[in-house]
Amino acid sequence: NVSRTVDMDDRSLRAIIVGDGPKSNGILASDSFVITAASEIMAIMALSKGYEDLKERLGNIIIGYTADNRPVFARDIKANGAMAALLSDALKPNIVQSVENVPAIIHTGPFGNIAHGTSSILGDYAALNMFDYTVTEAGFGSDLGFEKFMDIVTREAKLPVDAVVIVATIRAMKHHGGAKNIDEENVPALKTGIENLFAHIKNIENFGIEPVVALNIHPVDTDKEIKATTEILDTKEIKYAVSNVYSRGGEGGIQLAEKMLESIRENKITYAYDINDPIRVKIEKIARKVYGARDIEFSKEALMDIKRAENNGFGKFYVCMAKTQSSISDNPSLLNVPENFKVKVNSIVINGGSGFIIPILGNIMTMPGLPRHPAAEKIDIDSKGNITGLS
Amino acid sequence: NVSRTVDMDDRSLRAIIVGDGPKSNGILASDSFVITAASEIMAIMALSKGYEDLKERLGNIIIGYTADNRPVFARDIKANGAMAALLSDALKPNIVQSVENVPAIIHTGPFGNIAHGTSSILGDYAALNMFDYTVTEAGFGSDLGFEKFMDIVTREAKLPVDAVVIVATIRAMKHHGGAKNIDEENVPALKTGIENLFAHIKNIENFGIEPVVALNIHPVDTDKEIKATTEILDTKEIKYAVSNVYSRGGEGGIQLAEKMLESIRENKITYAYDINDPIRVKIEKIARKVYGARDIEFSKEALMDIKRAENNGFGKFYVCMAKTQSSISDNPSLLNVPENFKVKVNSIVINGGSGFIIPILGNIMTMPGLPRHPAAEKIDIDSKGNITGLS
Amino acid sequence: NVSRTVDMDDRSLRAIIVGDGPKSNGILASDSFVITAASEIMAIMALSKGYEDLKERLGNIIIGYTADNRPVFARDIKANGAMAALLSDALKPNIVQSVENVPAIIHTGPFGNIAHGTSSILGDYAALNMFDYTVTEAGFGSDLGFEKFMDIVTREAKLPVDAVVIVATIRAMKHHGGAKNIDEENVPALKTGIENLFAHIKNIENFGIEPVVALNIHPVDTDKEIKATTEILDTKEIKYAVSNVYSRGGEGGIQLAEKMLESIRENKITYAYDINDPIRVKIEKIARKVYGARDIEFSKEALMDIKRAENNGFGKFYVCMAKTQSSISDNPSLLNVPENFKVKVNSIVINGGSGFIIPILGNIMTMPGLPRHPAAEKIDIDSKGNITGLS
Amino acid sequence: NVSRTVDMDDRSLRAIIVGDGPKSNGILASDSFVITAASEIMAIMALSKGYEDLKERLGNIIIGYTADNRPVFARDIKANGAMAALLSDALKPNIVQSVENVPAIIHTGPFGNIAHGTSSILGDYAALNMFDYTVTEAGFGSDLGFEKFMDIVTREAKLPVDAVVIVATIRAMKHHGGAKNIDEENVPALKTGIENLFAHIKNIENFGIEPVVALNIHPVDTDKEIKATTEILDTKEIKYAVSNVYSRGGEGGIQLAEKMLESIRENKITYAYDINDPIRVKIEKIARKVYGARDIEFSKEALMDIKRAENNGFGKFYVCMAKTQSSISDNPSLLNVPENFKVKVNSIVINGGSGFIIPILGNIMTMPGLPRHPAAEKIDIDSKGNITGLS
Repeated sequence: NVSRTVDMDDRSLRAIIVGDGPKSNGILASDSFVITAASEIMAIMALSKGYEDLKERLGNIIIGYTADNRPVFARDIKANGAMAALLSDALKPNIVQSVENVPAIIHTGPFGNIAHGTSSILGDYAALNMFDYTVTEAGFGSDLGFEKFMDIVTREAKLPVDAVVIVATIRAMKHHGGAKNIDEENVPALKTGIENLFAHIKNIENFGIEPVVALNIHPVDTDKEIKATTEILDTKEIKYAVSNVYSRGGEGGIQLAEKMLESIRENKITYAYDINDPIRVKIEKIARKVYGARDIEFSKEALMDIKRAENNGFGKFYVCMAKTQSSISDNPSLLNVPENFKVKVNSIVINGGSGFIIPILGNIMTMPGLPRHPAAEKIDIDSKGNITGLS
Repeated sequence: NVSRTVDMDDRSLRAIIVGDGPKSNGILASDSFVITAASEIMAIMALSKGYEDLKERLGNIIIGYTADNRPVFARDIKANGAMAALLSDALKPNIVQSVENVPAIIHTGPFGNIAHGTSSILGDYAALNMFDYTVTEAGFGSDLGFEKFMDIVTREAKLPVDAVVIVATIRAMKHHGGAKNIDEENVPALKTGIENLFAHIKNIENFGIEPVVALNIHPVDTDKEIKATTEILDTKEIKYAVSNVYSRGGEGGIQLAEKMLESIRENKITYAYDINDPIRVKIEKIARKVYGARDIEFSKEALMDIKRAENNGFGKFYVCMAKTQSSISDNPSLLNVPENFKVKVNSIVINGGSGFIIPILGNIMTMPGLPRHPAAEKIDIDSKGNITGLS
Repeated sequence: NVSRTVDMDDRSLRAIIVGDGPKSNGILASDSFVITAASEIMAIMALSKGYEDLKERLGNIIIGYTADNRPVFARDIKANGAMAALLSDALKPNIVQSVENVPAIIHTGPFGNIAHGTSSILGDYAALNMFDYTVTEAGFGSDLGFEKFMDIVTREAKLPVDAVVIVATIRAMKHHGGAKNIDEENVPALKTGIENLFAHIKNIENFGIEPVVALNIHPVDTDKEIKATTEILDTKEIKYAVSNVYSRGGEGGIQLAEKMLESIRENKITYAYDINDPIRVKIEKIARKVYGARDIEFSKEALMDIKRAENNGFGKFYVCMAKTQSSISDNPSLLNVPENFKVKVNSIVINGGSGFIIPILGNIMTMPGLPRHPAAEKIDIDSKGNITGLS
Repeated sequence: NVSRTVDMDDRSLRAIIVGDGPKSNGILASDSFVITAASEIMAIMALSKGYEDLKERLGNIIIGYTADNRPVFARDIKANGAMAALLSDALKPNIVQSVENVPAIIHTGPFGNIAHGTSSILGDYAALNMFDYTVTEAGFGSDLGFEKFMDIVTREAKLPVDAVVIVATIRAMKHHGGAKNIDEENVPALKTGIENLFAHIKNIENFGIEPVVALNIHPVDTDKEIKATTEILDTKEIKYAVSNVYSRGGEGGIQLAEKMLESIRENKITYAYDINDPIRVKIEKIARKVYGARDIEFSKEALMDIKRAENNGFGKFYVCMAKTQSSISDNPSLLNVPENFKVKVNSIVINGGSGFIIPILGNIMTMPGLPRHPAAEKIDIDSKGNITGLS
């Protein structure tokens, strides 16, 4: 069932028992809190195309199942109108500016590992109406944010995708190549781990788009490493640009921007799955085509969940995988480009409001804990109201 | 220990068990949520005189006790700076306008039955600087809001009190006189229940101020009832004005305003207790002088709580009674002016940040439940974003 | 619903939550353990008249109610046969001997404050067949064990009662007379507290039997106190015998035995209530006639419980009061012969197997805790298997 | 910490929260019940050599750890004397008879997957004193009961082992050979799965004893299967006897008994590990030598547990593996003779009373649930006390 939501990292609320004490305190039940980003409402906000759509989606949230496995919706307890009213201001995209005074729209932030992880559709529409070029970010790799942006967001929003930039770092490639210390020069590890980048590039090409690689330079990257990388990219005839935005700001990204502009074209998208595929087929297609899995194993529980979902008419929902970001597979310890692995689907969650079938491929943390020294310890205010310690 | 706070009526959160599941989910413990108004932080906001004071008070919140009964403060876990920073905007009083466009400052709302129940001191200061007259409200009767306003707020804020208006309704007097249906004319019940008004008037006079009674007319009050009331007040030589603000708005209150202006003088306040009295004496003085109790019984637990409080240096805190508003006694079923009753102090809570000794005289609800048909059911929004059902 | 039972004093099991963890661990629910004596099964054993009766009663245990308030019985889950089989040996009365080698039957021990508190009917039958005289004990006073023995056991077992001995101690009378230290001579307190004995005698007479008082002498009783007592008993023409069994064993009880034999006659019993009275009437009759209450107040919950019981056909059950043994009233702090008190019925428990309507008149402890130094600490065994510390 | 124990299959008690309600109900804590066989006390009973030993072992039970990781023993709360006294009768072995009137000692039953799984040492001693030959059973395979009997029981009891019989069934071999339906003839699966038997034989030989195989015939075994088996055993020159005890009782076992008598000799035992090996080494030796594991992985938690155990002086305890019986490995789905597998040690439990280091290699069920139709449903008693449905 639906968790309570609070925007605070409080690990004691991960698993709670509510309704203790006398009967008037409600039914004794296992429950949990998740943070705002992990709430289905965040995903709904990101997908809604207006007040009516918002209200309808909120009403479609499944708050539980009856004894005979029929869904109970938020609209059944008449909670949708009030929720939509409460969110009416929040549905309007926010415009902010970067440190270089470039306007940016920041709106909604659904978790990339249990939801679709991208900025709101209304924000995209606003940007498309206001600016010459609209660039949006899809979190994590081609296996997570990109796949979901393509298969879910562009289909839902009916948006074309004219270009794709994939950001690569030498340190990440060394990590995938097996380097223990990614802050030390390690050209052999780099040459091994660049395969991971190629796997992501192939994923993007499979959707029908030729990406531009942004080689995002970090101060510890050595000339030897940069040269080794660009040589391989040149050999492979991969479009790329060295990006120095990390050290030089917007100016450092001009070369990249030019490359990207060159790459713009009307692309014909090939989705990972057809929306009319049976649920199992949709999941299997993503796992095989995007992750490179050999097999897909569904637990008994997952199979029952799928059956219930199809019986209740949720078969044509999008698939939104809940998967680790540490590997292109579902196993966080498999680096680079794993092969011959089996994806295990433990269970399936149905989000009626966002319209998602969420296969759970591992333990996903939806309520973080605080670090040993919480950031709050350093935050302070003086007698004039000046706040310090925020960054 | 300190409860978690959420501003939602969710009775399932009244008594919860947190930290279920693996060890990484924290310690298994009984816990609870209260609504915002019931949080000590709300009382602290209402009493703070600036950022420094706010931060110090927040740091003085007692979050628990060690095994040897020493308090652990919020400052011990370095939470005070961040809390104060988070509240920095909220500490600024808000100015709003009434439906007749009269400016009003609305700022903070501590529960009147577990905290002091009045608007913020910073709001009072702002009003005193900006307007000719400053009128504030103290919730419930002379036994709750008025007592706490006098004994706590005016001492803490060092504010004079130049006049007091006590609002009386014929329906409340009939209720205290034993009427079953207060919407029906019932002069005998009225004549009995007016004693309750006199008890409140006496309480105010005991503090050294002669109040003006605002006889707040309601449409169902009959001429006979109004006449009976004014005759008794005339006979008793009690200052009063008939107020028709309920039916005629500000215009209906002009007579009352004039009476109140006449009553303004520099009053010499007699507090219910001396701040240096021992804790038990302070509690007993309020119970005897203000409630009219014959005896005060302290439970074993309350006596141990008092001892611990005095050992830890909290003996000079204000007393802030947690008491029912349904009776001038601590027993909600005793109407009018009960006599020969015994007040029972079940336990004592110490709020280090607001500086309160809170004697618990009964079960006080700090997390309401929803009614059978929650107001939310009627709230709605249309496709243009117009919200309906809020009133 | 029915509690789990374990014969160990483990206060941590008074209120537990079962079924934590994954779904396969069962339903999350509030639950409790009680000790063996507090289990309905103990009362059933004490009332059963054979295997068939035992099995039927076990099958009638109510293990819960459906959503529409119909009882679910142990027989509905086919638990009665196995339970009866498990108890088949336990149903046979045990014969033991006293320290003076007198045979005694010890069989079953239902709690006197939540059940009927007397030895088994099968044990009574066995004793009646084997011995010249059968003496049984009914725990606590005439308001508890005696009332239940008369109204429940003798009716259920169809047993005549030929004589009644009421045991009185000087120390108990001093306690009821307000003495602080009952080990010190205190004739005035004794003279006051003897009224409590008279109240119990009157209760017995109201059932139609003239009792013999056993004045049970304790070493601290003084000659003055004994004399004062016997003088009052003589004056009141109450049959009694001084008993010295405490200091002199069986020999010290000969005088009492003789008095008792003299008092034997065929008594015509007047029960406290008619079994066909409505439930409320039965409860009120006990409270008024036996406890001396002026009023009886039923909580809303109790009234609903009574209605449900009568709807389900349990109206003709015996009433078995759950009441404190510290007072003849339901308030443990009212000593001697309280008057003008009101009995409060908080709730009603129905025990379908023992056939009891159990009005709950206060908090009754059904799972004791251990003392600060548990008796187990002193128990030991040596290398030969000799056990020490049992007494 | 130590679980509570109850001898009833009650899955709702697997994971409970105790101490709910007011403070007087004890500390709120996660807890659990296990059945009697899973209690450390059962293992202690099985290993004790007398009252003194029993009491000492009970006193060594670890009931928890202090904040600085020092053990708290049952003797620290003086519970050992009373526990030993309570068990004094239970420590005496029971003699019963088989259906063919052969005397047998049945005494204690520690779980074979979390304890050592064999009958008591005192029972063994009694049998050795009373009979010509003493035969005992060690549950499950050579990887569980046999390994523990050799490494723990024979060392602890200082008992020689003169012969070993390993019971093999054709159906089990077919199961390990991959047969789906072991009730159907399947010679190829049998020929594959007989490798599992050879692995167990090799394990026994590694301890220094040549076993006799009891080929335990089941009615569904076909002549072809029996012939295939005996031919392979003959070819491999393995000592065996066909046993027909299942269909013909004791008479069917005469051939086996004769073979076993022939095999009796004074064996020189080679244990799987030296008691003075570090804990990790002991575990690794069992995993490699007995299970055939390639690697052993210790979780962080297990490593910390081992460190704490060695710091507290428990390093020389026996290792008693908690492992599945469904595979010779720690993974229940690996049949026959798995190779190249890695054993994972999740955590370590120390049983101070039995003197066991218990590495937890998976989820071991210590509180069974009831089947869909509990056996109790068929048990009944008639009016004469005759019990039916027990078998």
